[in-house]
Amino acid sequence: MSEKTKFNDYAIVGLGLIGGSIAKDIRTKHPESSIYAIDTDQNSIDAAISEGVIDGAIGYDDLPYVSHLTILAPPIDFVEESARSVSRAFQSAHRRIFEKHIVIDTASIKSPIASVFQDLSRTTEGVEFLATHPMAGTEYSGFRHARKDLFRAKPWIISPHAENSEETVKLISNLVSELGAKIRIIDPDTHDQHAGLVSHAVILLSNALFDFVATNHPDALDMAGDGFISTTRLASGNPELHKSIIQSNSDITEAHLEEFIDYLKSKIGGLPNDDESLLSYFTENMNRRNSWLRKRK
Amino acid sequence: MSEKTKFNDYAIVGLGLIGGSIAKDIRTKHPESSIYAIDTDQNSIDAAISEGVIDGAIGYDDLPYVSHLTILAPPIDFVEESARSVSRAFQSAHRRIFEKHIVIDTASIKSPIASVFQDLSRTTEGVEFLATHPMAGTEYSGFRHARKDLFRAKPWIISPHAENSEETVKLISNLVSELGAKIRIIDPDTHDQHAGLVSHAVILLSNALFDFVATNHPDALDMAGDGFISTTRLASGNPELHKSIIQSNSDITEAHLEEFIDYLKSKIGGLPNDDESLLSYFTENMNRRNSWLRKRK
Repeated sequence: MSEKTKFNDYAIVGLGLIGGSIAKDIRTKHPESSIYAIDTDQNSIDAAISEGVIDGAIGYDDLPYVSHLTILAPPIDFVEESARSVSRAFQSAHRRIFEKHIVIDTASIKSPIASVFQDLSRTTEGVEFLATHPMAGTEYSGFRHARKDLFRAKPWIISPHAENSEETVKLISNLVSELGAKIRIIDPDTHDQHAGLVSHAVILLSNALFDFVATNHPDALDMAGDGFISTTRLASGNPELHKSIIQSNSDITEAHLEEFIDYLKSKIGGLPNDDESLLSYFTENMNRRNSWLRKRK
Repeated sequence: MSEKTKFNDYAIVGLGLIGGSIAKDIRTKHPESSIYAIDTDQNSIDAAISEGVIDGAIGYDDLPYVSHLTILAPPIDFVEESARSVSRAFQSAHRRIFEKHIVIDTASIKSPIASVFQDLSRTTEGVEFLATHPMAGTEYSGFRHARKDLFRAKPWIISPHAENSEETVKLISNLVSELGAKIRIIDPDTHDQHAGLVSHAVILLSNALFDFVATNHPDALDMAGDGFISTTRLASGNPELHKSIIQSNSDITEAHLEEFIDYLKSKIGGLPNDDESLLSYFTENMNRRNSWLRKRK
């Protein structure tokens, strides 16, 4: 019944790329911990059990009896429903193994989720919901692509609401650090503004570039090399995930893209005629980007 | 004095990323070949000799006596000057070890170079200049980043002009195949049209995206993850190279970007409101891109 500074009892809802990677990472760093999973996909459960990544599959009703920290990593559209299921399970449980239970999510949108989490934290006794978002991923999805080092050196945003305690933010910050990620405490609205640019607008831009070339200039694909491949990498991303991301934040994303289009237009007209300024343009971008990459490590 | 179907005597002008990678690749696949290099950077020469990649440094005047195939891989702006130096060396040589000498380049623009190569092939007895372009690179430059597998599974464009013989195109195609690259025979104007899109416009787009975020929304960089990193990778590319590339093909590149902007605008307005079409948009892009990547292998 005692509170611990580190978690030993985990539950993960959704063993996809993110949930699976978190499970593998925790299993590697804390082999003694117990990790249970909730997933409707029996193949992922079977794979995770046979690889020794989780101890078994459970339902929501089991959470109060086996878990101290529950990590919600289902498809974005199911985070709210999943959080409500956790809340109901604790409200109807006869007992629980920890006085205070913590729930975090990993979805790429934060404002609507933090709002629901605030309500649930107030109404679910002894359960605190904290909105978080690891900025990590690959163009592959599913448990079979999960890997334990996915979060190393990547930003992991923690977006507290008014009901969150400092202690919980600290406990989750410790966990995020243990997984090698870089903690960023950012309020939910600012998160969605920034994610709408560096993540969501970039998904649409990368897709539009591939789509444009493949549709209007298919012969040019024959000549495309590494630059085109990395710039369009997101166009091979998980369609369901990208659909949900774009729909969850479409106004902000569109506004960023429109601002970017104006910026791009101003660059196209101005640059190519002047030798000196073109060289310094590329040099400055290289220096700023490399310095940013170094600071992220 | 006899003609060979495979080259054994190579000279490389410019031991940068491309020239250095070609040298390493040939050295690995044909250890018995002789490889000489022309480069004003003594550090690259010293490194290449001490690593056993080249047999020594030479000047243009030595070419007729040591080389059967000369590969021009200097900065783009020097390709023409370098080709003229090769021509002069052969015209003033007392003798040559091969009756017919072949010269290729590796620059990312082909129309103006193929035109010069056509003139030089006509005026330089026993020397044939063929314009080519390996579509490979990394965001790093210089001999120290050169690696032997750089061209594997990458397109390598061969752009013959009216003076090129079928035999020479075949010999160079064999070499390109040996380096693991995919041969594409494309006329110089079409090359520049397609490269202006899948390479040159993408350089500007990737730079503009990084520049836009770093300038207008620097706080958002704190949250940027893998998607932003790959989409902006080209912004860390060699500034001198990118300056020369953009200047060499600016009209075509600008026209492509303007067409892309119109396309992007039409996508932003139409997509995010419709669940079904947004999912099928991402699904179709993923399928087309993955199928294209598979066919490239």
